[in-house]
Amino acid sequence: MQLITLTTDFGLRDWFVGTMKGVIHRIAPRAVIVDITHEIPPGDIRSGAFALAAAWRFFPTGSVHVAIVDPGVGSARAAIAVRTARGTFVGPDNGVLSSALVGESILGIRRLTNERFFLTPLSHTFHGRDVFAPVAAHLCRGARFDTLGPEAEDFVRLPQAPPRRCGGTIQGRVLYVDRFGNAITNIPNAWIESARAGIFLRGKRIGPLASFYQAVPRGRAVGVPGSTGFLEVAVNGGNAAKRFGLKPGTAVRVRLEPR
Amino acid sequence: MQLITLTTDFGLRDWFVGTMKGVIHRIAPRAVIVDITHEIPPGDIRSGAFALAAAWRFFPTGSVHVAIVDPGVGSARAAIAVRTARGTFVGPDNGVLSSALVGESILGIRRLTNERFFLTPLSHTFHGRDVFAPVAAHLCRGARFDTLGPEAEDFVRLPQAPPRRCGGTIQGRVLYVDRFGNAITNIPNAWIESARAGIFLRGKRIGPLASFYQAVPRGRAVGVPGSTGFLEVAVNGGNAAKRFGLKPGTAVRVRLEPR
Amino acid sequence: MQLITLTTDFGLRDWFVGTMKGVIHRIAPRAVIVDITHEIPPGDIRSGAFALAAAWRFFPTGSVHVAIVDPGVGSARAAIAVRTARGTFVGPDNGVLSSALVGESILGIRRLTNERFFLTPLSHTFHGRDVFAPVAAHLCRGARFDTLGPEAEDFVRLPQAPPRRCGGTIQGRVLYVDRFGNAITNIPNAWIESARAGIFLRGKRIGPLASFYQAVPRGRAVGVPGSTGFLEVAVNGGNAAKRFGLKPGTAVRVRLEPR
Repeated sequence: MQLITLTTDFGLRDWFVGTMKGVIHRIAPRAVIVDITHEIPPGDIRSGAFALAAAWRFFPTGSVHVAIVDPGVGSARAAIAVRTARGTFVGPDNGVLSSALVGESILGIRRLTNERFFLTPLSHTFHGRDVFAPVAAHLCRGARFDTLGPEAEDFVRLPQAPPRRCGGTIQGRVLYVDRFGNAITNIPNAWIESARAGIFLRGKRIGPLASFYQAVPRGRAVGVPGSTGFLEVAVNGGNAAKRFGLKPGTAVRVRLEPR
Repeated sequence: MQLITLTTDFGLRDWFVGTMKGVIHRIAPRAVIVDITHEIPPGDIRSGAFALAAAWRFFPTGSVHVAIVDPGVGSARAAIAVRTARGTFVGPDNGVLSSALVGESILGIRRLTNERFFLTPLSHTFHGRDVFAPVAAHLCRGARFDTLGPEAEDFVRLPQAPPRRCGGTIQGRVLYVDRFGNAITNIPNAWIESARAGIFLRGKRIGPLASFYQAVPRGRAVGVPGSTGFLEVAVNGGNAAKRFGLKPGTAVRVRLEPR
Repeated sequence: MQLITLTTDFGLRDWFVGTMKGVIHRIAPRAVIVDITHEIPPGDIRSGAFALAAAWRFFPTGSVHVAIVDPGVGSARAAIAVRTARGTFVGPDNGVLSSALVGESILGIRRLTNERFFLTPLSHTFHGRDVFAPVAAHLCRGARFDTLGPEAEDFVRLPQAPPRRCGGTIQGRVLYVDRFGNAITNIPNAWIESARAGIFLRGKRIGPLASFYQAVPRGRAVGVPGSTGFLEVAVNGGNAAKRFGLKPGTAVRVRLEPR
């Protein structure tokens, strides 16, 4: 199978995403296209990178993952493709691919410059349609990776702010707030799993660690080992982000407690 | 063909739905996946049940229908699959499947406990990805229904509040408000079709019964036999729910009138 | 391949679009269905027409394009199919198909009256499900165009307000505002490309013409040749429509400047 995933900030209210799919199907009629999301906030490269990183491992090996959050479209920023043993990643070289590639061994990086794979005329404002969609489709149809353009030495990586651990205290940050208002942090589940612990915001304990949302009464806060592999701060039946004013960057502390 | 439908409250702004599709395609590469909707209000089991019930009959016989509105994920609530002659229904056992199954003859009910069909590691917060998507995909690929887990005697049913009829008056309730602000009631079209009647809210006649929206002047209220098989309250060119403060539970009265 | 595109104002929060896809797959199991968009504002025929016109050329030749923005559903308005050398267009005859068809040579127009291709019972409020989806699916499966219904002489066209050019000044209008707040005008890129020019709103120059968004500093306005073939008014890293109060109909002036 030939599977292409799409992660963008194009939204679903205009024709942008549908048009990309038209381009793909014209080139690779048998491609299966799956939307990861198109509702990344406009220009929010970090959230786009997070969404792709959270999702791509669940797709078949060999999938082509296209991620486009591209405020610099038309400028000098490069367009790239990165190949790993598990898939190929296509997008602007601004960091949006980088979170997915943390810890992956890189087989190759190419700058997308071969115009044979682009639509003509090439717009300066919609490379999703004119560059990234056709390149992904040609990869699906079997275009050789090394024909995409010249080799690149590296790709842009988003700066990381790893969590810190000191005795029984873990200091982390919110990375992403989901539609339920759950705040996903950078604290790995492996650091906390099966521990007894309290979750602290701005110096105040807001709730315990538990293994699922309904382990606390309705309306109460809880930290749970999240499905992305990282601690989530949630409110059972409520919206933790609204309740506590959580957003990307908010500091979260976990204090391990004696059993 | 192997068709899987998805009805959830996961929304489209995160990677949740896309990830489920990745899981399905890994297991059942030829599955066709159709979204019924993912914009059920978070935790609103009743609206999820309504959407599935309104849609599933229009899909091919044998489709697998997955519905997930699951505030109790990770708790003791069961996960089930229900088989009928026309399709298989998969989801949490909290009533979200039950409206679709009203009047259907049930061939079998299984609790989903066979971990062979789950992803590992199994999260406590995203059974859409780790339980329901892979179970649906395995069913598509031909896994035997009775290998999913032990037989269950019954499934949770949402309480029904049927409409009442007394002489020329029908008393019903709003069940669902759609994006256009049309309020779908529990009054069957068959009770009113081709009748002359008035629609009443809070004791006041708001408009006539007619067969389509534009049968009344722009901006005027009208009751129409709706496409789900039930009376809808609408405003031609407007939003009836906003105009009249309609929401699930609002009482609606129809009074048949002499011709 | 059999490809069907869908452009509607049905939104994604209800089951309407999913249900149409169920109907299509029941009739044409191998059809590939691509959403152009379902978030056209309710009843906004002009925006629906614009979206379809912007997207359809990027799909494979022979695709069936369904567009439904249909406030008159159930009334006397006709339902039509229009065939061109590059595809077939299906929808209500209220102008929603007409922008896509500007400049195309028309091979045939049929009124959709052959009930053999409709669902039964036929609702008066959801022809997307009961008329347009099944007709598109039957066309995909090879139903002959001339069996859809009687020939029609013409279809409803939306009135056009072409831009005007006088010396070095071009006077146009906003046709569409996209999710980024970029305002797409009716001024063809060909009239301005590679020119030096200023963009004027309400008599005031707001920014220069450039070839991409980041050609001006962050937060500054710019006119760019847009990906639909028409001038867009944008703000680099911002929302031009909100900043300047742009909406469909707003007058935009371009003044060519000496190099």
